[in-house]
Amino acid sequence: MTNLKNDIFLRALLKQPVEYTPIWMMRQAGRYLQEYNETRARAGDFLTLCKTPSLATEVTLQPLERFPLDAAILFSDILTIPDAMGLGLYFAQGEGPMFERPLRDEQAINNLNIPDPNTDLRYVMDAVAEIRKALNNRVPLIGFSGSPFTLACYMVEGRGGTDFREIKTMLYDRPDLLHRILDKNAQAVTTYLNAQIDSGAQAIMIFDTWGGALSHSAYREFSLRYIHQIIDGLIKQKDNLRIPNIVFTKGGGLWLESIAEISCDAVGLDWTIDIGEARRRVGEKVALQGNLDPSILFASPAVISKEVDKILSSYGNGSGHVFNLGHGISQFTPPENAAALVEAVHTLSRQYH
Amino acid sequence: MTNLKNDIFLRALLKQPVEYTPIWMMRQAGRYLQEYNETRARAGDFLTLCKTPSLATEVTLQPLERFPLDAAILFSDILTIPDAMGLGLYFAQGEGPMFERPLRDEQAINNLNIPDPNTDLRYVMDAVAEIRKALNNRVPLIGFSGSPFTLACYMVEGRGGTDFREIKTMLYDRPDLLHRILDKNAQAVTTYLNAQIDSGAQAIMIFDTWGGALSHSAYREFSLRYIHQIIDGLIKQKDNLRIPNIVFTKGGGLWLESIAEISCDAVGLDWTIDIGEARRRVGEKVALQGNLDPSILFASPAVISKEVDKILSSYGNGSGHVFNLGHGISQFTPPENAAALVEAVHTLSRQYH
Repeated sequence: MTNLKNDIFLRALLKQPVEYTPIWMMRQAGRYLQEYNETRARAGDFLTLCKTPSLATEVTLQPLERFPLDAAILFSDILTIPDAMGLGLYFAQGEGPMFERPLRDEQAINNLNIPDPNTDLRYVMDAVAEIRKALNNRVPLIGFSGSPFTLACYMVEGRGGTDFREIKTMLYDRPDLLHRILDKNAQAVTTYLNAQIDSGAQAIMIFDTWGGALSHSAYREFSLRYIHQIIDGLIKQKDNLRIPNIVFTKGGGLWLESIAEISCDAVGLDWTIDIGEARRRVGEKVALQGNLDPSILFASPAVISKEVDKILSSYGNGSGHVFNLGHGISQFTPPENAAALVEAVHTLSRQYH
Repeated sequence: MTNLKNDIFLRALLKQPVEYTPIWMMRQAGRYLQEYNETRARAGDFLTLCKTPSLATEVTLQPLERFPLDAAILFSDILTIPDAMGLGLYFAQGEGPMFERPLRDEQAINNLNIPDPNTDLRYVMDAVAEIRKALNNRVPLIGFSGSPFTLACYMVEGRGGTDFREIKTMLYDRPDLLHRILDKNAQAVTTYLNAQIDSGAQAIMIFDTWGGALSHSAYREFSLRYIHQIIDGLIKQKDNLRIPNIVFTKGGGLWLESIAEISCDAVGLDWTIDIGEARRRVGEKVALQGNLDPSILFASPAVISKEVDKILSSYGNGSGHVFNLGHGISQFTPPENAAALVEAVHTLSRQYH
C-alpha cells in the first residue's frame, strides 16, 4: 500500500481506475518560472544547480507550489552519466551542453568506465532522497535518464543540436564501436536508475530525445534494443509497490508497436500522433503519456482548454493516460497558461473516468 | 509521346513499367561538389547564383555530368516567392536565409501581394527554359516550390531553424491570420509552379520541410489543405504529356494515408519509415520517392550498397518507386560515395523489374 496523498499518476500508469487524468509537464521546473531563475542565479550556473541537492530539491518543488501537478520529477540533467564518465561536460553561453572530450577514438571507447551511481553520482542520489523527504508523500517522484543512444549522440558529437554526422558515420561505418558505447551506456543507465529507485524514485522515465533521427531499422538496432535492455534490468517493485516506467522516443510515432513490445509500462507521445490512434495501435499493452504541443501554451486559456479536450476525447474513456506535453515546456510560456492547462486537464477529464 | 532520351523517372512516377529504379538526389547540385563551389564563388553570393539563369543552368547540370542521374532539378531557393513578395530575403553568414521584414502584423498580411511569376520571378522561368535547352532532352527537369506552410514558417519567423514559436502562436491564437497568409501562399505557389511548367518543367515537387513540426490535426488544417489546393490547381498535362507531381512532408510518415488522398502522383518519404510498410499503407494510390538516410553516404560503398538493397527489396517488385535520399545530400558527402549510390540503385534494382 502507498502512503501517497496523491497516487493517481502511478495508478494511471498501471491502468488502474482513476477519478481524473493526472498531469505533469516535462521540464516543469524551468526557466518559465521566475522562482527557478532566482534559484539558478543563486547557484551561479546550471551544473552547480544540478549538483547541489538542496538547490535541486528547491527547484523540483517550485512548480508543485504553483500548480496542482500529479507528479514531481527529479531536477537534473540527462548528461550526468557521460559527465561522470569523465567526458568533461560544460555549458557554453547560448550553446547548450558540450563535452570537452568527444568520444570518437576506439581506445577511448574501450576505456570508458561505467560510473558507480552511489559514489560518482552521489549528488543525484542525495537529491532524490532530499526531494522525497521534502515532498512528504504529496505526489510521486519520477527519476529519469537519457536513453543510451541519446547519451551517445552527445558523447560522440560532443554537443546537441547537430546533424548527427559523427554518430551516424560511426553507426554505418563502425557499428561495432557504437554498440560498445551503447552497451556501456545501457549498463550505466540501468544501475543509475536502480540507484535512483533505491534512493526513493517512485517511477522512472527514459528520454530518447534523438532516437527519432534514426532510420526505422537503425532505431531498433541502436536505440530501442538498449532501452529494452534497461527495462529488463530495472527494479520493478519496492516495498510492495510497483515502480512503473515510461519510455519516450521523440519522433517515434511510427514505431509505437515496437516500443510497446519491450514490456515498458507506458509510452510517451509527441504531438504528431493522434493519441486515440496511438491507443488503438498499442491496445492494452501500455499506458500512454502525452501529447499536447507545448506551443499551444502560447495561446489563450480558451484555446488551451479546447486543445486539451481534443486529446482527452481522442483518448476516450478509462485509465491509462497521463497527460503531458509532447516536449519540454518552453521558457517563454506564461506561467498562468501552465496553470490553465493543469486546471483544464483536471476538470475536463472527469467525464472520461 | 516524349522526346526524352531517358524518361524512366516520369514513368516510375506514373507507375508505368521501368527497367530499373530511377534515382535523383535532393540538393544534388550543391556544396559537396567542387565545381558547384567554384561557380558559386564566381557568382559572388548564393542569391546571385539563384538569380542568374546561366549560372543556375550551369550548377543544375553539374551533377548530371558526374553521375548518371535520371532527373535534373531546377537550381533555385524555396524562398523566391516570399522574396518576390517583398520581405527582404538575405543570407547572413553561417545563419541561412533570413527576412528583413518578418510577417507578423495584420496590416502587412492583408497587403501581401501575390507575385506574378512571369515578371517578378522572371529569372526562375528563364532558368527553367535555359536548363531545358541545355539538357537537350537527356532527362526530365523537375520544377519545385516550398509548401505554403513551409514558406509561412520562414515568413513569420523571419528565418529557419527556429522553435516555431512565432508561427505556432499565430496558428493557435490567430488562426485567421495564418490562413490568410497560407491562402495567398497557395495561390502564389500554384501560379509559380504552373509558370515553371509553361517554361518547361516536366515534373513538379512540393517541399513541405516544416509540416512535420505540426500536430496531426494542425498539419491537415494548415499544411496539407493548402498543398491539396495547389495540386488541384496544377497543370496536369502539356503537349500530351502528363506532368507528375510529388509531395514531400519531412516527418510526415504518420500521415501518409492523408497525403496520398490529395490526388498527388507521388509521396516523398524520409528515412524514418520502412518503404515497404509505406507502400502497403498507400496501396496503389501513389508512387513513392525515397528514402535513404543521407548520412549513409558517409559510410563505405559496401555499406551504401547494402542499405540501398534493403530499401529496394522492402519496396519489392514493380514500378512506382523513385529512389532518393530522405533529405538533401550533405555538403560533407564524398562525391565518389554519391556515385556509388547511383551505381548501386541502377544495378541492384534491375531484379525487381
